[in-house]
Amino acid sequence: MPKLILVRHGQSQWNLENRFTGWWDVDLTERGVEEAMAAGALIKDKGVEPTRAFTSLQTRAIRTLHLALHQCDRLWIPETKNWRLNERHYGGLTGLDKQETRDKHGDTQVHIWRRSFDVPPPELEPGSRYDLANDPRYAGVDVPRTESLKLTIERVLPYWESDILPVLASGETVIISAHGNSLRALVKHLSGISDEDITGLEIPTGQPIIYDFDDAMTPGERYYLKDS
Amino acid sequence: MPKLILVRHGQSQWNLENRFTGWWDVDLTERGVEEAMAAGALIKDKGVEPTRAFTSLQTRAIRTLHLALHQCDRLWIPETKNWRLNERHYGGLTGLDKQETRDKHGDTQVHIWRRSFDVPPPELEPGSRYDLANDPRYAGVDVPRTESLKLTIERVLPYWESDILPVLASGETVIISAHGNSLRALVKHLSGISDEDITGLEIPTGQPIIYDFDDAMTPGERYYLKDS
Repeated sequence: MPKLILVRHGQSQWNLENRFTGWWDVDLTERGVEEAMAAGALIKDKGVEPTRAFTSLQTRAIRTLHLALHQCDRLWIPETKNWRLNERHYGGLTGLDKQETRDKHGDTQVHIWRRSFDVPPPELEPGSRYDLANDPRYAGVDVPRTESLKLTIERVLPYWESDILPVLASGETVIISAHGNSLRALVKHLSGISDEDITGLEIPTGQPIIYDFDDAMTPGERYYLKDS
Repeated sequence: MPKLILVRHGQSQWNLENRFTGWWDVDLTERGVEEAMAAGALIKDKGVEPTRAFTSLQTRAIRTLHLALHQCDRLWIPETKNWRLNERHYGGLTGLDKQETRDKHGDTQVHIWRRSFDVPPPELEPGSRYDLANDPRYAGVDVPRTESLKLTIERVLPYWESDILPVLASGETVIISAHGNSLRALVKHLSGISDEDITGLEIPTGQPIIYDFDDAMTPGERYYLKDS
């Protein structure tokens, strides 16, 4: 039966520093590396080795995938990378830490951006040091200037439908290594979570989440691989 | 202009132990990891960052690619893996070290297998511990029981023509992370080396080799990136 494994990348340098990261390409910390390796060891231990892999264009998710696949002897499976699995773009908040954001915008406003479903942060200024519009990695991509969770979902789900679901439906065990908000998009869709509730759902780093699908490609309840 | 970067994987555990490896999936040593990282650092230093990657289905080549791409900030480029870039299959010699091979087959015979263009070693016995015919990684592949260099070339070149050359011709900078003999196949073809001379050509590990192509897709002289 088709099985889906979701893994959120291990701790990044800016997770550690509590900075808004979004599309900025920050690497894993040593702890993040260990989390990714532990995810792969658990996959091997539970015997749910993936046969196909999808990830974003961001180093922290790609390395998490590679470290996990190395641990479960599956580096050789086909791997597809796509910007649609990238983290939510945090716009003008990119690079700010919690304190800087509060100082600049005030607690109430920050809470709204963090927890609202459809209010995007202010746009990233063109030419800012975090502007990726001219990054060769995003050639041909209309790089967003900011995204709400709603906008993130609107670019993740078409890719899920067109590229991932058909592979899964062919009987593969698919692993997706991605980010807090691109994974929220998938979990919201697959577990039928409301707009209100999804913003509060935390996806832990390096902790594989499983969906088993039936013949009609209906997903069962999601569960943590460690609890299975 | 199209540019081709060839990298032979860094030192593996069986390189270190002087064992015939072939298709057996042996990992990099710590020195092999360092060689791969140094290759990536050199690529970054020289500013020849690849835009497309090809590798084999073997862990030592895939990890070499990933470690090198990480060092030059190119983990995000599309990556294609194919068994046709695998190492030459050493048949019944797989797993034997130099002394064991001499003891079993005699110096003269070993020299012939090592240096002849078209004499394959004895076939790997079906059901041997090194038999990969039922490995899921090679599902749908007619796994060879042994290969000469000639047979290796005969399965590498069609893939070069069908899958790699068209990508290169579209203007990409292509990196191929592979093995001593699959890279000999490419170098023989691109540099017009004779059957007699190619068996003596050593491809150093972790040392990027470059071909620049002209408008007619004729390759120039090959050179080491470190010398450029």
